[in-house]
Amino acid sequence: MKTNSTPIPGYSYGTAEVARSPVSIEQLQSLKITAGFTDEDERYLRLAGEVLADQTEKIVLHWRSGIIANIPNLARHSRTPEGDPIPAYLGASNLRFQQWIRDTCLRPYDQDWLDYQNEIALRHTTLKKNKTDGARSTPFVPFRDILAFVPVMNETIKPYLAAKGHSSEEVDKMHRAWMKSLQIQLALWLAPYAEAGHTSPQW
Amino acid sequence: MKTNSTPIPGYSYGTAEVARSPVSIEQLQSLKITAGFTDEDERYLRLAGEVLADQTEKIVLHWRSGIIANIPNLARHSRTPEGDPIPAYLGASNLRFQQWIRDTCLRPYDQDWLDYQNEIALRHTTLKKNKTDGARSTPFVPFRDILAFVPVMNETIKPYLAAKGHSSEEVDKMHRAWMKSLQIQLALWLAPYAEAGHTSPQW
Repeated sequence: MKTNSTPIPGYSYGTAEVARSPVSIEQLQSLKITAGFTDEDERYLRLAGEVLADQTEKIVLHWRSGIIANIPNLARHSRTPEGDPIPAYLGASNLRFQQWIRDTCLRPYDQDWLDYQNEIALRHTTLKKNKTDGARSTPFVPFRDILAFVPVMNETIKPYLAAKGHSSEEVDKMHRAWMKSLQIQLALWLAPYAEAGHTSPQW
Repeated sequence: MKTNSTPIPGYSYGTAEVARSPVSIEQLQSLKITAGFTDEDERYLRLAGEVLADQTEKIVLHWRSGIIANIPNLARHSRTPEGDPIPAYLGASNLRFQQWIRDTCLRPYDQDWLDYQNEIALRHTTLKKNKTDGARSTPFVPFRDILAFVPVMNETIKPYLAAKGHSSEEVDKMHRAWMKSLQIQLALWLAPYAEAGHTSPQW
């Protein structure tokens, strides 16, 4: 696991602050089977992690400034209710976004990973959004927008996977493993979103 | 729109029986923007529809008998609680599954399509599963399993998209449009699943 020279603000992976996931390791195993996520996918995700590790800043900039910033319905989630930018919030969450790419590819999908999936999801709901950074922004990100944005991340990640000279077959395998992982992660986010939705729907 | 010589049991697209979607056309438009679903994608979905139209039986057989039947956690949803097959239920739902492929590619994404998305989702929850066919099977399909199975449908559809001699660029464009559509459909399923989940969680 690549470690950063400076700690990432609000990144609490593997610490005691992170609550237990409502999804069990057995349920995760079942999701992997459903998604056709195999040991080969795991190996190609590791390779993707090596390929992407020094490109994460560029990728997140591409997503945030190149795409999200131009879609008002998405951009508002890192701005104030009045639409003003919050550079400290965006900066910290961008660093965590970069680390999420590395975690997606390089972490073992064990209890710590499962627990942190739950934490990340909660941080997009009314239960935890803005709290880590003390930001004044939208109360939650509707889950449907996250679901719908995934194809964009899937499509735009591909050239970065191809940027280190791997064969198109290897790039395809890395890409398929990435897409499966993202979909499994979305499936893991359902329970925390449902938890947050008890008080107000956040779909 | 291709019409079948015999009507599909329980298929009620565009009829007065289908309730209004809780998602508006404006929200659908916003989801399309989020997913990067463009007019070009719409055109390539039409092409995909032409390519897939006479292959839908084979594709659904591939998914059902080639994949789902071998994953007990998924196969159970078309069987009795004791695990016995229900051929009439499976047969009717396979015909609707085939029609869904055609509808995904060939229907305009208008109010009828939006309403039928809601109907399809409800038919996977306790509110409507089994009712159309009078089947005795599992009370609902957990949404996380549908989410996680989508990468498998995405991966396995590709050779069928390539089966009519289109260039690899055209196949890629059809494939990307297909994947975006499926993700938008999943986003549309959240609200009906949440509705069903008021009484018992179905994630």
